[in-house]
Amino acid sequence: MPTRYAYLGPEGTFTEAALRTLKPDAAESAFVPCSGVDAVFAAVRRGDVDGGVVPLENSVEGGVTATIAELINGDPLLIAAEVTVPVQFTLFAREGVALTDIKRVATHAHALAQCRSWLARYLPDAETHTVSSTAAAAQAVAEPGAPYDAAISARIAGERYGLRPLFDGIGDRSDAATRFIHLVRPGSLPSPTGTDRTSLVAFLTDDHPGALVELLNQFAVRGVNLTRLESRPTGDGLGRYCFCLDADGHVADAGVGEALMGLRRVCKDVRFLGSYPRTGDATELTPFMPTRGTTNADFQEAEQWLARIRAGQSG
Amino acid sequence: MPTRYAYLGPEGTFTEAALRTLKPDAAESAFVPCSGVDAVFAAVRRGDVDGGVVPLENSVEGGVTATIAELINGDPLLIAAEVTVPVQFTLFAREGVALTDIKRVATHAHALAQCRSWLARYLPDAETHTVSSTAAAAQAVAEPGAPYDAAISARIAGERYGLRPLFDGIGDRSDAATRFIHLVRPGSLPSPTGTDRTSLVAFLTDDHPGALVELLNQFAVRGVNLTRLESRPTGDGLGRYCFCLDADGHVADAGVGEALMGLRRVCKDVRFLGSYPRTGDATELTPFMPTRGTTNADFQEAEQWLARIRAGQSG
Amino acid sequence: MPTRYAYLGPEGTFTEAALRTLKPDAAESAFVPCSGVDAVFAAVRRGDVDGGVVPLENSVEGGVTATIAELINGDPLLIAAEVTVPVQFTLFAREGVALTDIKRVATHAHALAQCRSWLARYLPDAETHTVSSTAAAAQAVAEPGAPYDAAISARIAGERYGLRPLFDGIGDRSDAATRFIHLVRPGSLPSPTGTDRTSLVAFLTDDHPGALVELLNQFAVRGVNLTRLESRPTGDGLGRYCFCLDADGHVADAGVGEALMGLRRVCKDVRFLGSYPRTGDATELTPFMPTRGTTNADFQEAEQWLARIRAGQSG
Amino acid sequence: MPTRYAYLGPEGTFTEAALRTLKPDAAESAFVPCSGVDAVFAAVRRGDVDGGVVPLENSVEGGVTATIAELINGDPLLIAAEVTVPVQFTLFAREGVALTDIKRVATHAHALAQCRSWLARYLPDAETHTVSSTAAAAQAVAEPGAPYDAAISARIAGERYGLRPLFDGIGDRSDAATRFIHLVRPGSLPSPTGTDRTSLVAFLTDDHPGALVELLNQFAVRGVNLTRLESRPTGDGLGRYCFCLDADGHVADAGVGEALMGLRRVCKDVRFLGSYPRTGDATELTPFMPTRGTTNADFQEAEQWLARIRAGQSG
Repeated sequence: MPTRYAYLGPEGTFTEAALRTLKPDAAESAFVPCSGVDAVFAAVRRGDVDGGVVPLENSVEGGVTATIAELINGDPLLIAAEVTVPVQFTLFAREGVALTDIKRVATHAHALAQCRSWLARYLPDAETHTVSSTAAAAQAVAEPGAPYDAAISARIAGERYGLRPLFDGIGDRSDAATRFIHLVRPGSLPSPTGTDRTSLVAFLTDDHPGALVELLNQFAVRGVNLTRLESRPTGDGLGRYCFCLDADGHVADAGVGEALMGLRRVCKDVRFLGSYPRTGDATELTPFMPTRGTTNADFQEAEQWLARIRAGQSG
Repeated sequence: MPTRYAYLGPEGTFTEAALRTLKPDAAESAFVPCSGVDAVFAAVRRGDVDGGVVPLENSVEGGVTATIAELINGDPLLIAAEVTVPVQFTLFAREGVALTDIKRVATHAHALAQCRSWLARYLPDAETHTVSSTAAAAQAVAEPGAPYDAAISARIAGERYGLRPLFDGIGDRSDAATRFIHLVRPGSLPSPTGTDRTSLVAFLTDDHPGALVELLNQFAVRGVNLTRLESRPTGDGLGRYCFCLDADGHVADAGVGEALMGLRRVCKDVRFLGSYPRTGDATELTPFMPTRGTTNADFQEAEQWLARIRAGQSG
Repeated sequence: MPTRYAYLGPEGTFTEAALRTLKPDAAESAFVPCSGVDAVFAAVRRGDVDGGVVPLENSVEGGVTATIAELINGDPLLIAAEVTVPVQFTLFAREGVALTDIKRVATHAHALAQCRSWLARYLPDAETHTVSSTAAAAQAVAEPGAPYDAAISARIAGERYGLRPLFDGIGDRSDAATRFIHLVRPGSLPSPTGTDRTSLVAFLTDDHPGALVELLNQFAVRGVNLTRLESRPTGDGLGRYCFCLDADGHVADAGVGEALMGLRRVCKDVRFLGSYPRTGDATELTPFMPTRGTTNADFQEAEQWLARIRAGQSG
Repeated sequence: MPTRYAYLGPEGTFTEAALRTLKPDAAESAFVPCSGVDAVFAAVRRGDVDGGVVPLENSVEGGVTATIAELINGDPLLIAAEVTVPVQFTLFAREGVALTDIKRVATHAHALAQCRSWLARYLPDAETHTVSSTAAAAQAVAEPGAPYDAAISARIAGERYGLRPLFDGIGDRSDAATRFIHLVRPGSLPSPTGTDRTSLVAFLTDDHPGALVELLNQFAVRGVNLTRLESRPTGDGLGRYCFCLDADGHVADAGVGEALMGLRRVCKDVRFLGSYPRTGDATELTPFMPTRGTTNADFQEAEQWLARIRAGQSG
């Protein structure tokens, strides 16, 4: 039986494009489109599929609320891989339809927001309609007797539904991108590669100010760089937050491991979300990082020194 | 001419309930429902209305992306007031419809997510349909020949459209709440009341790690407590964030004023979003706060001391 | 052969009093007075004695420069115990000498500084002479034909040399105290008692600002409280310092051990000076200490959790 | 009447050399040698002299305890200038005395400690005697029938007493230096020069941990670099410290002024010791310094921005 992957569907979404990048050799028949982020998580949790792909954050919209909520709550899943996909929009129409014929354009609300400038310039008189996804827009346009003349979607969606591309790259920001994650059930971790990322959720204790800086320091003193810090409500009332974090490094690394033990000690709760190969760069958020002493070898040497002084030697 | 207020419509939304709480004496005819958060901002910016009310954050879903995006970008508006409204859902139906008659329920996607447990127990066989707002669901159910038998909405919406409440408080979390803000054009600030809140957006410089802790310290050394810290993408690529902050106190207070000057100096950009009377409590996020020396009188005394030592006196 | 202890002599010093407190059962003949702090260190290093006692810090004068210099440089010794001795001065004279007979008083310069008020009031016309120690003053007064009429010294010194106490507690500060340490050659450490202290010297790297706060944070994130922080010149030019630290806890404790490994990684050099039972209280200097997660059991639980998540389990 | 300066005597001390560097044009008759650091402070406080020069810290021995005690206690004086003098030792003898004739060498204890290696190599069989200062050693050797054959002292001392230099630079550390300060009564401050230093003493509150990091942060958030941090006992018992600080900049600078106001607010007490032209370099001790926004112009711009937003403008 082939390995099966769930993804946020329908066919032709940017999520499918992300899945194809992650699993270029997987048979297509093993890709299972789901109607929502929660459905992807549920399929992985039940074991209906071996893994699932969902969007985590977008460079324009920010964190994907549904994904983050599922990562925080419910049975834990692990992130086994990540991939960043450029979000480039294409205007598609049925064969034989020219730009001047277009009166009604369908797309997803986010895509519409990101293509306003282009539409204002080239299709100022067209009506716009929002549907559940950009892939659904392409699918709708492809049907005979469709109520729309054109769709704005990912390249993959227009091609999937047999449409003709009229214009590529019509988004206002040519550098927009979405980061997708590959989810699996717990059981094992990818091996360290030397350029890894570790994700987790930290729930601060309610009762003392400074808990956020304390959390940042747990990483800083081990020389572990943070690349994402996003607050999310815990659901227990306004003003109560947990923090979703990405850190450079693998939990098998000495520094990351010690930092996570530190969080485990001082936080109300910590949910480990996985260590996996890192793609792309990111801003450094961590304070006053040590400029030395942060390699695995440095940690090992320090451990040997500690053993010596604990034995009463002079170090 | 009466003072006019825009709000996120249609009639019957939780936002309208928030507006009524903020302006209990305003004539109803002066309330202008808008079809989106962006439309409310646009109406205030153009001067079509004197103020506008939109949701800022929800205790379950987190920050409202559209509101935050408008606060960060476009012509600056100021927050003149805030109000927190409990999010309590009611099941409404037309007169004469009993629970056992209900086959199809309409509501907004977020409301559906928050009422799943109740629906699974009491209406396990009913179809659910999502529409653009809970108020729109109530409106749709009220129409003759409606395709839905019941709506889940705010109390205000069901009453507005003449529906009959069947069950109150059907949300999974009885303590869910949404915080709404009242937006105005720049021009003047509410006077300090002693229990105020100040909101702003800070854009960190890209080029040095530790910028986030530096930002937190600007507040900490002046004894100013932070109550909200939310990262948002700047739109300039993954891994680039700005931070939306709420702090205790009024910009007219010495400590808050000095902290804001500190941000102005060290951040790439700071957008001030207003100082206004605070409602409700919140977690303290700021590190190791001074336990003394943080009142306006303390700042004034220190200023007089500095003048003396700058004049060569012994202090 | 009896265990032998060197101490800062001559007989009758406060250091001898400290040694008697530390070793109440040791035969007197095994106490070896030395003529300077460096001589005590040398005797211990050479193995002429089994241990040595020297003053480390005084509540009025601060750190004892000679002791700190020897701890920092030369072959490493370990602190095996500490004791704090109240510094109370007594005016002694030979038998038959009354207060009104006293024309010339001998003592050590520090003692003179601390008894000025009493002398100004009760012996305003007496000459004062400073000698090498308060014990030497007592010894000199006891000799036939002594050039001095009275000595200011510790109780132990006057009694040793057969003098008669005239006035007790003549120091300006009744709460003055000196902390003494018991030095031994490396080899083994005292067992943890639950209330221990750990001493060390940290040499910061020259090349990055913030190294001091980084050092403080290494203790803070493990919940280890600092009780002394004293800068000393490294000898490599003005503006180059190392820091002598005391921390609560024993190096065998998980938190202290991990903090010391952190210093070892990020500092240019660390010299461990011992873990030993703590006496007395002290100010807390460490920032924003965690309020939870700092016991040995907490560290152990966190280690087990890390092992689970490293194995791919959900935590 | 000429301006008069007290200094730590006798004639020929390194302190006199420092005074000559600071006041090259002052008539010699206006220089008043005093027999101790406390005598210099007393002379300035009483108005017997216009200023006084004392050593503050030595690159090998550390802070000069007597000077620091006088700066902390008693009537406040201000530091009006500093100068760093290389500590270079010269072996002096009377005319006609050769190296091989030398049996007894006199010097101060500190100088002896710093010349041990040279003596061990070139005068291994000579007796050494310590006297109250290196200048006193030179004076003693110069007297007819002196009990010593040679003196180790500053160049200035040997020349003053008509001795002949045999060897220059005999100290173990060729880069040893002492920093001297020029004390005046309060009344006015030197004008800012652009490269100034500010000195002060901060007394922390007893009651909360983290006070030291809080203090460091008061400087850090204004971009003010610390160059010296030395703990001293307050005299109120072991474990109670105050901190002597040097910071880059002049109290008339915006950042330094604001930082001092911050200390004034959060510390139990602050004693300002003066702002004066800086000589020499020093290590940076302050954490994670801002990389922007720290000039006087930056502070002024931020103040104007604050005035705008306080007036309800958009910034």
